[in-house]
Order: sequence, then C-alpha cells, then structure tokens
Amino acid sequence: MIKSRLSLDEYEKGVTGGDRVILSRAITLIESTLVKDQELGSQLLDRLLPHTGNSVRIGITGIPGVGKSTFIESFGGMLTPDNKVAVLAIDPSSEKTRGSILGDKTRMTELSRNPNAYIRPSPTATNLGGVASRTREVMLLCEAAGFNIILIETVGVGQSETVVKGMVDFFLLLMIAGAGDEMQGIKKGIVEMADTIAINKDDAADSSSVQQAREAYQQALHILNSDNTTWTPKVVTCSGLTGGGMEDIWAIIQKYVQERKNNGQFEAYRAEQHLKWMHESISSLLKADFYSNPKILKALPKLEQAIQNGKKHPIQAARELIALFRKG
Amino acid sequence: MIKSRLSLDEYEKGVTGGDRVILSRAITLIESTLVKDQELGSQLLDRLLPHTGNSVRIGITGIPGVGKSTFIESFGGMLTPDNKVAVLAIDPSSEKTRGSILGDKTRMTELSRNPNAYIRPSPTATNLGGVASRTREVMLLCEAAGFNIILIETVGVGQSETVVKGMVDFFLLLMIAGAGDEMQGIKKGIVEMADTIAINKDDAADSSSVQQAREAYQQALHILNSDNTTWTPKVVTCSGLTGGGMEDIWAIIQKYVQERKNNGQFEAYRAEQHLKWMHESISSLLKADFYSNPKILKALPKLEQAIQNGKKHPIQAARELIALFRKG
Repeated sequence: MIKSRLSLDEYEKGVTGGDRVILSRAITLIESTLVKDQELGSQLLDRLLPHTGNSVRIGITGIPGVGKSTFIESFGGMLTPDNKVAVLAIDPSSEKTRGSILGDKTRMTELSRNPNAYIRPSPTATNLGGVASRTREVMLLCEAAGFNIILIETVGVGQSETVVKGMVDFFLLLMIAGAGDEMQGIKKGIVEMADTIAINKDDAADSSSVQQAREAYQQALHILNSDNTTWTPKVVTCSGLTGGGMEDIWAIIQKYVQERKNNGQFEAYRAEQHLKWMHESISSLLKADFYSNPKILKALPKLEQAIQNGKKHPIQAARELIALFRKG
Repeated sequence: MIKSRLSLDEYEKGVTGGDRVILSRAITLIESTLVKDQELGSQLLDRLLPHTGNSVRIGITGIPGVGKSTFIESFGGMLTPDNKVAVLAIDPSSEKTRGSILGDKTRMTELSRNPNAYIRPSPTATNLGGVASRTREVMLLCEAAGFNIILIETVGVGQSETVVKGMVDFFLLLMIAGAGDEMQGIKKGIVEMADTIAINKDDAADSSSVQQAREAYQQALHILNSDNTTWTPKVVTCSGLTGGGMEDIWAIIQKYVQERKNNGQFEAYRAEQHLKWMHESISSLLKADFYSNPKILKALPKLEQAIQNGKKHPIQAARELIALFRKG
C-alpha cells in the first residue's frame, strides 16, 4: 500500500501540524498488516499519544436506509465553521465485501471537500476486533492532527454498535418514522445504548407518524433505561436533507459532555473504556498470534466442519488446536 | 478439594451409571484448578462426550428478589416425576464473594432432597469466562449422568445472561409486577433475549398490576423482537409459591423445542453455539496462559493503576505486557 515510507519525524510533524496528506499516509501505515509498517506505526503512536484525547467522540448508528451519510454530511457541515470534524467508520460488512459504508466518498460530496472535515473509509480486516482496534488508533491520529470532533459511523445491524459504544463519549441512534413496526430491523440492545435517538427524514414523513415514532421510542427508552447515570436519553427529530434539528442535536451533545465533565462521569467513563481497551488489546494480540499461525490456519477449517457436522466436540477441537499451537 | 482421586474408569462408570456421589466428585474434578486434575478431567470429558447433548437446556434469569429459587423449587418439582432435572448456576457475583446464588442449598429444600433432581452451586472462578466454560462442562457431565433437563440459573444484573443465552436452548426471564417502572433494575438487552417472560408472584400482587405488567412486557417484546426466527416470545404469569403456571411454562418450552426440532433450527442453533464455544475455549485457554503468567501477574496492577490515572495509554500498556509475556 505504501510506496515509500516517511521517517518517524516526518510523520509526527506532519500529523501534529494537521497536514491531511501525511495524516492519510500515517493512517495507511497504522492499518498496514506488514510487520515493518506495524513497528513504525507503534513508534508513531507512542509519539502522538500526548496529543490525543481532546476530542468529543460521537458514535452514530442506524440501519441502512436511515440516511446516515446525508445526516453526517449535514451535521458535519453545520459543525465545521467552528470545529474540525473527522468521520470514521466501523463496518462489519466490509470484511465480506458485502458493500461498505463510507466506501464511496461521493456519498458525502460537500463534506469531503470541506477543509475542516476529514473523511476516512472503513479499514478492511478479517475480524471486527481488528477493525475496532484500528479504528481506535485512527481516532487517536485524527485527534493528534487537531480534529476536535470525531464521528464514528456504523451500521446498526450487528455487533459493531457495542464496539463503537465502547470507544465513544456519546452514542446517537438514527431512526426513521412510519416503517410499520417502529423498531423493525433494529438489532437487539441497540436502542438501549442510545444517549439520544434522532428520528431522521422528518421532512419526508407526515408529522403524525413522526410524532408517533417519537413517542414510541421515548416510551421504549423510558422502559429500558436503567443505567446509573443521571442522563435521560432524549428523542428528537431531524432532517439530514434540510438540516433541520442539527443544532438541537449538537446542543444536546454539548450539554451531555458538560454535565458529565462537571460530575466527573466523563473522565471516569473514559478511564473505564481505557481499562477495557488494554485487555481487549491484549486479547487481540494473543488471538492474532494464534490465528495467524500456519498450522492453525491449516487445521481450523476441517475442525470447524467437524463441529458443524456434530463429529467433533468444541472442547476437543479447541484443545487439539491449542496443543498444535504450543508445539509450533 | 479432592482427597483421593478415582480412576478414569471409576469416574466414567459412576457418572454414566447416574451415581450422584461420583457425579459430584467428577464435577469437583472438572472445576479443580490443579493441573493434574485438569488433565484427568479432560480425559473424562472425552469419554463422556458421546453421552451428552440429549437434554433440554433452559436458562432462567431475573433480578434478586424476583423469586428465582422458589420458582426453580416449584418448576423443578413439577418436572421431576417424569424427568431428571439438574440445576446449575452462573453467578458473576461469586467471584467477588458478594454472595452467591445457589450457595445455600437450603434455599431449595424440597428439590435438594428430590431423588430426580441434582443441584450444584456456582463454581468460583476469577472471571466470568472461566465460570462459563466450567458450567458448560458441568452441564455435559450432568447430561452424561442421565439428566434430561438442565436449568441454568443466573442473576439478571450483568454480562452473565449473554453467556447463559449462548449455552441454552431456551431462555426464560422472570419478572415481578407492581415495581413501579416495570423494567426497573433489568439490565439492558436482557428482555430481548427472552424466549418467554414469566411474571412471578402473581399470587402476591393484585391482578390488575399483574395484567398491566404483562401487557407492558408483551409490548416491549413486540417492539424489540427482530430475530429471524419463527418464534414469538410469550409472556405468562406464574407463582413459584403456589405452583401456578408451572405446567403452562413447561408446555411452552416443549412446544418451542418441538417446533425448532421440526424446522431444523434447534440443531442449527446448537451447531452455531458449538462453533462459538470452540473459539471461546481457544480464547480462554490463551488468556489463561497469559493471565496466570507470574511476570504478568506482577506487572498488571501497576499498569492498570497507571491507565486509570491517565499516566499510561492502554495501547502502550498492552504492548508492554505482551512483550513481557513473549520474553517469559
């Protein structure tokens, strides 16, 4: 991917100086699977860490068709006069090339040309854990480059929301009204993660269905909200197309961040995320060693097949593979 | 724990012969952390595996105070004339000795004296993953000993429900009516896992509040249910104290199992669970190696402290620990 590497100093200077071309190259370095790139990437991260952590990290999710790109185009545009906004994505579907969010920058034509915005497509990786750990690191690079608002987009259909929830300060769920069963297509548990639900496309749907949806979600949040925090999740309506509601959403997020900074929950939550981050990093480094082992790569498919056919028990299969790994 | 080990043959014969004393000793063997016990336990499991898998595995959860033990006492008692019932527990609180479910068999006095029932308290372990993998193995031992219904109890306040959900065929959530906000105290996401919600203590609460609760849960399940299965979660009322509703719940479970066996979902779901089981086993074997390493044990607390104080970044801490581990 990288034709010629820069020096560590060049990367560091470029990123902290806000040079977008070097930022992109640094991200490509971080995402590289080459051992040499990874070593250089680690050193670069070490140097950049003192410049990270100063952004508001916002997760945005919603099913396909809810209008995420239009929303981000509009929301990001509203933010940029006063802020530097980076847009990243965690896309569980990219690993199977079932189409990728943010794969096409033309979906956000305005924002991609905006000098205060930076859009980075989802990295491809063989597992969600890998994508997640890289997205976290890309987030750090963007922070070091001076972006003070990070938007992390994900598709609301899988495990990826839990992953995003674990790396952001605020979690926004986009929904649409009038789709019959209001929660249809929304994966279990996602509604309850939301710090705010925004019903998008309120320009398109008739206002009674929007109000109906709003009440249904408000009710669901009320029923399901049981966190020990002082924050009550909000339900608002908006339109990515017209820009309606964008400032309200930003006001909610600012209020949320301010409240939590005042009562210490903001820092406490980040510290908690960081502890998990360390253990997850350990876990993924251990697994990376295991699943990249040539012997394991060779033996695994047959054992998986045997398990699905009921010919091998999972405990036995795991033990066999671990024994193989220890020998190697 | 084990004063004198039996031979592999003695364990095998005892367990498959349904000898409860030997079953208990075999479980203690499986739960032992001694290397020698673990080796023998592995060999025993290998021998017993052909006799496993023939039970209906039922997860039961609910917040403290919902009446889980009284429910299980009653439900298990109703089942035992025709079935052999084993009751296990996954208790995330046991690791911190914050009190343990099933720690006291006297909570189920009738069932603990019932010749067709077997109650096993929650194992203690340093992590939920460890507890889970042992509970799975204990479940296999019980199946090999001829128990055809396995009830796995857990407290509905943490991560343990996801773990239980991943090892059972049917997931029952116990609730009570009239506690103000109907979902209060129920952790996010648990309601949506339920194949059936049973509102317990319908003898104690007034009937209008029971009906109100039932409708609220039915509504919540309707809103949140988005699985691709053909099953619609049921909401019923019952009383562990009087035994009311127990037969209805069992009829629902039997219908569920029958339907899913007919359409192939039962076996497909188990195969899916087994694949995850293998990868989880691999993961926990890898982590066990890591977190039991003396160097790691020594270095970890300081690094965790440094992360919480913001003095060390999680990525750096993880890398330091992995480097230490590889050296060892």
